[in-house]
Amino acid sequence: MSGVLTSQAADFPRWYQEVLAKATLAETGPIRGTMVIRPYGYAIWERIQAEMDMRIKAAGAENVYFPLLIPESRLRREAEHVEGFSPELAVVTEAGGRRLEEPAVIRPTSETVFGEYMARWVQSHRDLPLRLNQWANVVRWELRPRLFLRTSEFLWQEGHTAHANRADAAAYARRIHADVYRAVLEDVLAIPVLNGLKTDAERFAGAAATLTCEGMMRDGKALQLATSHELGQNFARAFDVTYTDAQGTVQHCWTTSWGSSTRMVGGLIMAHGDDAGLRLPPRVAPVQVVLVAVKDAPAVSEVLGRLQPQLAAAGTRVRVDDRTDVGLGRRLTDWELKGVPVRLEVGPRDLADGVVSLVRRDRGVRELVPVDAAVAAATTAVDAIQNALREEAAALLARRTVDVSDVDAAVDAARDGFARLPWAACGADGERRLNAAGVSIRCVMTAEGAVPDNLDEDDLVAIAGRAY
Amino acid sequence: MSGVLTSQAADFPRWYQEVLAKATLAETGPIRGTMVIRPYGYAIWERIQAEMDMRIKAAGAENVYFPLLIPESRLRREAEHVEGFSPELAVVTEAGGRRLEEPAVIRPTSETVFGEYMARWVQSHRDLPLRLNQWANVVRWELRPRLFLRTSEFLWQEGHTAHANRADAAAYARRIHADVYRAVLEDVLAIPVLNGLKTDAERFAGAAATLTCEGMMRDGKALQLATSHELGQNFARAFDVTYTDAQGTVQHCWTTSWGSSTRMVGGLIMAHGDDAGLRLPPRVAPVQVVLVAVKDAPAVSEVLGRLQPQLAAAGTRVRVDDRTDVGLGRRLTDWELKGVPVRLEVGPRDLADGVVSLVRRDRGVRELVPVDAAVAAATTAVDAIQNALREEAAALLARRTVDVSDVDAAVDAARDGFARLPWAACGADGERRLNAAGVSIRCVMTAEGAVPDNLDEDDLVAIAGRAY
Repeated sequence: MSGVLTSQAADFPRWYQEVLAKATLAETGPIRGTMVIRPYGYAIWERIQAEMDMRIKAAGAENVYFPLLIPESRLRREAEHVEGFSPELAVVTEAGGRRLEEPAVIRPTSETVFGEYMARWVQSHRDLPLRLNQWANVVRWELRPRLFLRTSEFLWQEGHTAHANRADAAAYARRIHADVYRAVLEDVLAIPVLNGLKTDAERFAGAAATLTCEGMMRDGKALQLATSHELGQNFARAFDVTYTDAQGTVQHCWTTSWGSSTRMVGGLIMAHGDDAGLRLPPRVAPVQVVLVAVKDAPAVSEVLGRLQPQLAAAGTRVRVDDRTDVGLGRRLTDWELKGVPVRLEVGPRDLADGVVSLVRRDRGVRELVPVDAAVAAATTAVDAIQNALREEAAALLARRTVDVSDVDAAVDAARDGFARLPWAACGADGERRLNAAGVSIRCVMTAEGAVPDNLDEDDLVAIAGRAY
Repeated sequence: MSGVLTSQAADFPRWYQEVLAKATLAETGPIRGTMVIRPYGYAIWERIQAEMDMRIKAAGAENVYFPLLIPESRLRREAEHVEGFSPELAVVTEAGGRRLEEPAVIRPTSETVFGEYMARWVQSHRDLPLRLNQWANVVRWELRPRLFLRTSEFLWQEGHTAHANRADAAAYARRIHADVYRAVLEDVLAIPVLNGLKTDAERFAGAAATLTCEGMMRDGKALQLATSHELGQNFARAFDVTYTDAQGTVQHCWTTSWGSSTRMVGGLIMAHGDDAGLRLPPRVAPVQVVLVAVKDAPAVSEVLGRLQPQLAAAGTRVRVDDRTDVGLGRRLTDWELKGVPVRLEVGPRDLADGVVSLVRRDRGVRELVPVDAAVAAATTAVDAIQNALREEAAALLARRTVDVSDVDAAVDAARDGFARLPWAACGADGERRLNAAGVSIRCVMTAEGAVPDNLDEDDLVAIAGRAY
């Protein structure tokens, strides 16, 4: 293993870049800040997307598609909105061989267009709730790009919903937070997340409340993985999204918005990867079991040909590596880099003893299993690894989260992980002092780790940390 | 029915526009030529995309994602390529608050970037075949836009593959044509297509051969639905995509490319729709059976509550319409506009007789079925409609395709449909005369309707028609 990658302890950012390249996940695009997602990386994203999309639909939202290009004037309609995005915009000034009368902006989000069309589509209380979602690419020019984490173009989903009252909107933002984001992150990506509200300073512009899922990476830093916003009536007022209630009165809607992106792939890499490469939770792994031919021999081919369909029939995503003209060491290193959860090595010497080698990627331990028990052992290992990776990540989060009672101690503790301090001992002033030290409040939670109703509740705790 | 839409016979293009709006499929975006795809339209596209993607993967291709923006100079690398797209390009000149040193073009295709990266990724014969596909949005500025058929931005897939020799590349282009495009169009969208080669004049720039699927719309015009190209070694030479063969010699690859787009949704509408609206083949219908409450009554609710889970358990996509505060006529018209294959109308009077009404959208006939037989009758009807729509479209194609023996007769016949004439009686000169009359050769086939190996074979036939 050693020497294939820079170790995480030595230089975590460099480890990250190397694993992206060597596991063939992604590389930089022809324009600085853009990204080419290679087949192995895209296959991971497709699984995340499918798991998300299924849950978004189960929550009653429908997918739509709005245009990439937005007239510049529309974007300026919501002043607060454009102010946040202005320095990041990419502007089209020529199209179809002519200078455009009005420049068009590549969507940094489709928020303004959702607003304009939702205002048309909602007329009566019968049209509510209106629950829409879009999967698309967006562009926000990035001066300090990092693949998957911060790129000038990224892939994401943005949901926008309109409701008849505050309670419905608040409940829906919480439903998406819990049933979509938290469920995918914890149950599929095996990343335990902290769930809470953003502070006033960290909240999305125009939101009444922002719910977040915050994960801890293996260098102890935080990654914001998905956010859901209650927008009150702010958005509806800006875009004139109104409905006529059952009594015939025209009212502004209450809206939500929520988003997550290819950044999740970055989180997956940094939450589980080790010095040998990726460690993929089986539920998102493009290949769950790789069958490796140690040598070219008739007995080996026969066993591979038998195990592959059995594993596939057991519902496992299986791949055969019979490239015996490539050195075995190089191939094993490659499957470790790619983080395939279970490896079955099939060689003539082991077969003479009636066994094959099973190697779990999460622990690196090797075990000899009888050929006839290999399918059962592999599928059992696949299930076990999903839980083992989550438990390991939870243990890391617990170990590197320190309870402190004041801001100075929080700054110290955040050097190596998260600090958990009473929100009452921090407040807006304490938050400024944290920020000055390069630390931010990732979220505010109840003492039990639940999302509070608001920031004014008693006994809340703030999680402080350095963040990507 | 009458009066809801302009009739197809009176004004087909107007019918098309009206059905898009009234079936809530799509509307124009804020910038001329762009399109907002509404939930019902997007749900159809998602089903098409899923069916295509499954078959693309079965053909061994892997999905990737290349950036939206391409440096202008890269696009100019392949002269022939840029010449075709130049008048359609959208150009970004400002980004991140500054004027860009080099303008960036929004991809009209990702062909040039595929070329650049494929050249890096292919080194040895062991890297071949390299089979890549991308689902993405592209922009080609459109002066005469029509929703789904011709928009300045559209969604599509483009595949690019590299092979070691001509035979492998040719076989793969044919495989995609038959197992992906033709299979989805005929088996899922129920659109019978003509399969053949494009003439030299109609062929994609840089292609050695272009295979096409051509459908007939209900106004007798042709729609090109998907194309697959054999690119010979042209593309590999332009982008220097080479490999070292087993003997150590460096050779240029043989490549293919192939694409299809949201245009398929337009084809689906125009191939099956009638004067009452859409008629969706069940395999792509977001709703296959709608259960309509005729009136608000306890017996009606009870039956709806019983039939819905039974239909869902039978694998049917079912929706309940119990909006009894909206007039029944308006609701029925709406489900007809939306093309839902089967409607079960549940009313208290029918229930008193132990029956419900089953209406097949394809034929409009109403049938009374016992409540206990309703699920079986509905699922049988769903299966029957898939075939019935395909047979009806095939009959239209046969009826409106006329055998002729010369170019003048072809021009006449193409006023109302397709003309089928001996390719030997046409040739490049005849093709120019057809074009002058507003008619084009859609494809060249064998007498049996198969894709020929090349245009020089004996006894080929050309299909001439007006086209979208």
